[in-house]
Amino acid sequence: MQRRKVLGLAGAGAAGAAVAGAGAIALTHREPKPDTLVSDTAGAYPFYGERQAGIITPAQDRLHFCAFDVITDDKAALVDMLQDWTAAAARMTQGRDAGTFGAVGGSMQAPPDDTGEALDLPASGLTLTIGFGPTLFRDVRGKDRFGIAAKRPAALADLPNFPRDTLDPAISGGDIAVQACAHDPQVAVHAIRNLARIGMGKVSVRWSQLGFGRTSSTSRSQVTPRNLFGFKDGTRNLKAEDTALLDEHLWVHSGDGPDWMTGGSYLVTRKVRMLIETWDRSMLAEQQTIIGRDKGEGAPLTGKLEHDEPDFKAEDGEGQPVIAVDSHLRLAHADQNNGARLLRRGYNYVDGSDGLGRLNAGLFFIGYQRDPRKQFVQIQNSLAKLDALNEYIRHTSSGLFACPPGLLAADDYWGRSLFA
Amino acid sequence: MQRRKVLGLAGAGAAGAAVAGAGAIALTHREPKPDTLVSDTAGAYPFYGERQAGIITPAQDRLHFCAFDVITDDKAALVDMLQDWTAAAARMTQGRDAGTFGAVGGSMQAPPDDTGEALDLPASGLTLTIGFGPTLFRDVRGKDRFGIAAKRPAALADLPNFPRDTLDPAISGGDIAVQACAHDPQVAVHAIRNLARIGMGKVSVRWSQLGFGRTSSTSRSQVTPRNLFGFKDGTRNLKAEDTALLDEHLWVHSGDGPDWMTGGSYLVTRKVRMLIETWDRSMLAEQQTIIGRDKGEGAPLTGKLEHDEPDFKAEDGEGQPVIAVDSHLRLAHADQNNGARLLRRGYNYVDGSDGLGRLNAGLFFIGYQRDPRKQFVQIQNSLAKLDALNEYIRHTSSGLFACPPGLLAADDYWGRSLFA
Repeated sequence: MQRRKVLGLAGAGAAGAAVAGAGAIALTHREPKPDTLVSDTAGAYPFYGERQAGIITPAQDRLHFCAFDVITDDKAALVDMLQDWTAAAARMTQGRDAGTFGAVGGSMQAPPDDTGEALDLPASGLTLTIGFGPTLFRDVRGKDRFGIAAKRPAALADLPNFPRDTLDPAISGGDIAVQACAHDPQVAVHAIRNLARIGMGKVSVRWSQLGFGRTSSTSRSQVTPRNLFGFKDGTRNLKAEDTALLDEHLWVHSGDGPDWMTGGSYLVTRKVRMLIETWDRSMLAEQQTIIGRDKGEGAPLTGKLEHDEPDFKAEDGEGQPVIAVDSHLRLAHADQNNGARLLRRGYNYVDGSDGLGRLNAGLFFIGYQRDPRKQFVQIQNSLAKLDALNEYIRHTSSGLFACPPGLLAADDYWGRSLFA
Repeated sequence: MQRRKVLGLAGAGAAGAAVAGAGAIALTHREPKPDTLVSDTAGAYPFYGERQAGIITPAQDRLHFCAFDVITDDKAALVDMLQDWTAAAARMTQGRDAGTFGAVGGSMQAPPDDTGEALDLPASGLTLTIGFGPTLFRDVRGKDRFGIAAKRPAALADLPNFPRDTLDPAISGGDIAVQACAHDPQVAVHAIRNLARIGMGKVSVRWSQLGFGRTSSTSRSQVTPRNLFGFKDGTRNLKAEDTALLDEHLWVHSGDGPDWMTGGSYLVTRKVRMLIETWDRSMLAEQQTIIGRDKGEGAPLTGKLEHDEPDFKAEDGEGQPVIAVDSHLRLAHADQNNGARLLRRGYNYVDGSDGLGRLNAGLFFIGYQRDPRKQFVQIQNSLAKLDALNEYIRHTSSGLFACPPGLLAADDYWGRSLFA
């Protein structure tokens, strides 16, 4: 076990060096293809950097999101696991096996240190993004298991109960979350599965969610995708190219809270079940009124093109607002929410059927921001109270996580600034 | 409604004509790209043909499988729906909207005849394959609702209870199944969702399953993929190029049973939960002994290369068989099962977590064959009794469906030969 760890950290160090341009290694037959081109869906994004990858990284096609419960009270064991996770993540994001021996290279008389289902697959743009939930700082019994309660950021305040919330606690919350995004779902699943394997006895899978169709763009190089209501989603999303806006709305500043979060971002997840059968029976005109945009082009009802600015003051011939007062576009818009904006990178999901003859389908919302109190909470309060879309959706899961900045050095590890 | 249907059938007719080389139409802005190239993942497979597409079609990357209950006793209404389904399937497989007006082209005062989430997406190799379950011929109350009990093929005999079965009835069976395979999951989901929409009031979703990583190849042009045990799966699968073997093992012959199934095939589905956490703790040597192959190359333990023939008589230095008597390879092999073979095109799945700290993951098995009594039942009896792999798997869902041959004419429809 110890030998594996030493080798694992050595591997991570070498990978870090490779990012810095000092060389490259290939310990297994999974060849890394370092590459940041969006168009190369097999390529790899750097693991080390000022920011965690997977936030402004152009949204990959597939998601496996996993929230873990920490089942040990032993801080050293948890830190030990986070070191192991970091080494594995550094490897897997570069298209390599989770461990240095790999799926088939180790002892025949030991469990492999990689599970093998990604053996023949490239990096596929895999990013792994870690976040820490409120219950890690003080658990549900009120206990500060790891002596970090004083380091909990004020911005990581429990989300309020929103009107109409129908949350299932079993698929909400979590002490630690890992967001795996990749162009190949097998690669994203492989990454989460190997982290769960490495964490055995220290963490337990609380809930996990697969997503198949990204519902937002996070780069101007991407077209706006459609959600399961059939509408373009995320037209006004913050994009990687909006540097000044990201600085204002996405990244945590020095002085915003504890130092360990400076340069990080807060993540809110919401599983939003869509009652698609009901939606599918509604008139096209009604759908467009509810959203505030036309379905084909995605333009605001006061405009012609997707990126036209909505005119919230425009009225129709009868003196009624063209963009309805309870439309999703109006209620979610920054102008109606003290300027609050989010960087979203959610995914569509279908979890089989619901036992009532309907598909269990919807949107797994993922939103990153500088301070959820001023951003997600502000916007969701507007939406939850008035949004005409509420008739067709149910929020069934909620998560809140503090995602620290990226790792710059190969001897750094996930959570060091929090636990050290 | 009637107007839509007439136009729908006209559209299907035109598509049929296009397949026959007489021309092409593009009623919506989703341009069809007829193409049978495996390498073009955006292309379309022909809907019309001697066989249903989606059986020997090179296995696409993603699956949405749906089993429906028929909730009407009105045969005319069911036939009506099957005609509508056929028209929609002919359109969607060519990358077009489900209906002739499409997601945004119809009346503003009516629900759209397409749900819109695939508006900007190409055909993505979508195939839709229909099958009829035993309960369509005589329902669970013993009632022959549609007067077709006499047409039930003997080969569509209810599967026996196998040793160790832990089936959940809520996600087993079904009157009608549709297998949607595509390279883009959003396209597969869109197709099932629109069929469910069209069938509203006549059928109800009984269960549905998403799959993300094909676990078999059905063409020699494809590499053998890996399942979630990390092993190559489907090495000895029947392939599209094995014409004589397909004739012997896959396609129903004239005289095998009722005429309406001649040229069709029988489909067995099994959802196989994998206890991956337990597997991940087992030694590499044990894993290889259980499977009967090495993990890296996928060669039989008596050989060097993936496609080497296993030598079941070979013994090690201690006189023990190199390929264990309870290994999966030996027990599933045709030589041990009166020559029985299947064409498999299953998928990996992850359905979140199981509430016990584990990923709910496994294999959604899909097997096509000429006669399940002599093929799947034979093989599964061997496996269920002795397979060493049983310690790591649980069969949780089972389905059996008769899939008729393909449609040749644009005025034909799914189920005509059964219901007419």
